[in-house]
Amino acid sequence: MEGDEILVPITGGPVDGSGVISRPLSRTSSRASFGSDRDLKLQSEGPENTLEYRIQVKSDCGRVVSLWHDISLTHKDPNEKTDSGYLNFVCEIPKFTRKKYEIATDEIGNPIKQDEKKGVLREFKKGDIFFNYGCLPQTWEDPTFYHPDAEGCRGDNDPLDVCEIGARIIPPASVRPVKVLGVLCMIDEGEADWKVVVIDVHDKWAPFLNDIEDVEQELPGTLDAIREWFRTYKIPDGKPPNVFGLDEQFMNKKYAMEIIDECHHAWEDLISGEKERRVAEGGHDDEVKKLVRKLSKNSLFALAPEIDAHPEAHPEDYDDDDEALTF
Amino acid sequence: MEGDEILVPITGGPVDGSGVISRPLSRTSSRASFGSDRDLKLQSEGPENTLEYRIQVKSDCGRVVSLWHDISLTHKDPNEKTDSGYLNFVCEIPKFTRKKYEIATDEIGNPIKQDEKKGVLREFKKGDIFFNYGCLPQTWEDPTFYHPDAEGCRGDNDPLDVCEIGARIIPPASVRPVKVLGVLCMIDEGEADWKVVVIDVHDKWAPFLNDIEDVEQELPGTLDAIREWFRTYKIPDGKPPNVFGLDEQFMNKKYAMEIIDECHHAWEDLISGEKERRVAEGGHDDEVKKLVRKLSKNSLFALAPEIDAHPEAHPEDYDDDDEALTF
Repeated sequence: MEGDEILVPITGGPVDGSGVISRPLSRTSSRASFGSDRDLKLQSEGPENTLEYRIQVKSDCGRVVSLWHDISLTHKDPNEKTDSGYLNFVCEIPKFTRKKYEIATDEIGNPIKQDEKKGVLREFKKGDIFFNYGCLPQTWEDPTFYHPDAEGCRGDNDPLDVCEIGARIIPPASVRPVKVLGVLCMIDEGEADWKVVVIDVHDKWAPFLNDIEDVEQELPGTLDAIREWFRTYKIPDGKPPNVFGLDEQFMNKKYAMEIIDECHHAWEDLISGEKERRVAEGGHDDEVKKLVRKLSKNSLFALAPEIDAHPEAHPEDYDDDDEALTF
Repeated sequence: MEGDEILVPITGGPVDGSGVISRPLSRTSSRASFGSDRDLKLQSEGPENTLEYRIQVKSDCGRVVSLWHDISLTHKDPNEKTDSGYLNFVCEIPKFTRKKYEIATDEIGNPIKQDEKKGVLREFKKGDIFFNYGCLPQTWEDPTFYHPDAEGCRGDNDPLDVCEIGARIIPPASVRPVKVLGVLCMIDEGEADWKVVVIDVHDKWAPFLNDIEDVEQELPGTLDAIREWFRTYKIPDGKPPNVFGLDEQFMNKKYAMEIIDECHHAWEDLISGEKERRVAEGGHDDEVKKLVRKLSKNSLFALAPEIDAHPEAHPEDYDDDDEALTF
């Protein structure tokens, strides 16, 4: 990366022209990445319903692919290889299910695993989630950043969360092109945890949903139901209801794109090592330093077996190496 | 009714012509009824979350309308007043909620109430249901009838249940035109309790879903998720999983229409008094006699305040009285 800032205007899009991203992301990474799910395959490891279960994404030639770092934020038309005008969504938890699958952000290759607490696999005790839930690749909610609208809370140190409201069940570890519709500012145990609302571009409702007010008009009550899900889902675990910034309102697409842009910048700084350097310079407490260090460039390199196997590879050149995709 | 059997071919339909009912229902009632939700209004009574809460449907002029008996099974175009080719669906429980609202089949006017057991309002302990759930008006799962495919179980004495899989949340007591897609034979505590799968004709997926195999192809996993909901939803109440007839398969639209036809006949016999006469002739145990008697014509008339207020009205004339709509 080395300070590259490449402006990639995101224009064009599908035939109907509706709902494409209306403003360019201010910069996108030059890091090699997969722009769609073509050439990706899923490989499960270990028995389901165990702590060992993983779903790993691999390239056609068998290389490990990180769902967090190696899928581009912007979706590319798999034939044209150009920006489609949509974003990529990585599904972690399919609608109508309750197992808390998530990207293992601190494991080699960032597979999907079922979250655990004290050795117990986690489920939503509230019940099945009713939308596809996952994240935007190449984004990071920076735990050193306090968004002015987020009630004085810092980022939650994870990729940016996504609620996909289409009709299809999207399996864990799937990558789909989506339209961004809006965003909700959730505060979860003192951390900002934004929830971006999107719809799969192939959903039959997608042409009719281009911004947050369309969701309210066409599918009344759906946004309220999503908010109530997030407000209450931890109550059966004995925790208090979550709260929300911005008067509990879902913000529109323009606002959502700004949040996404910030989180993409933050991810770039994380992955380039810039964030770790800045945090080391001081002004942050030890907990935050530890969080950043855990996910930062040097730690990620230390995790990557391919790098270890090629000591001549210099980390600074890594981002330009099309073949060496995976942390 | 008096033995009338009026063949009403259900043809025509929306512009795209897809998914209209492909065979005529063998007879429909001459009973006066509402063909759509036009001219209907909802009136809630009592505080929500209490045993007294009711949602009563009324006509424009304020007459009580029964969601079970006074809405026609076949949907009528509200402007043309002709069959639209669709059926009416009465929603009881909106998707993404868990309060067990249902038509009070044994109350005057058949309002919606929250089901209760030993004075406690019932909710799905499993969690929120993820489809709109309700019934087909003017149908009845006859408790004296043993369907050959229903594992030797008799009907459950309720209107025929429906799962509506569209994207919109449908409020309780709403009436919507739907396309029938298929049916699942659930066995619930020894009773046949068929679940008809439909989609709101205004859903953007509706033109793409015309039979059960379309659901599996376009929305893979959805039918499995519905079956698993019904298999498991009573387990948190300490009950065993439900089981299913027909090898757990969802049957196609043609089969579903036959079930609906049977249940519409059964409702006609219930409402005409024919069923009560036949049951009285013998061959049924006391429990079944009691069930039928409770919902039969004579009991329903006894419940109807309008009838009581007009002693000159003869029950046999009731079906032809356009004004006297409600039991």
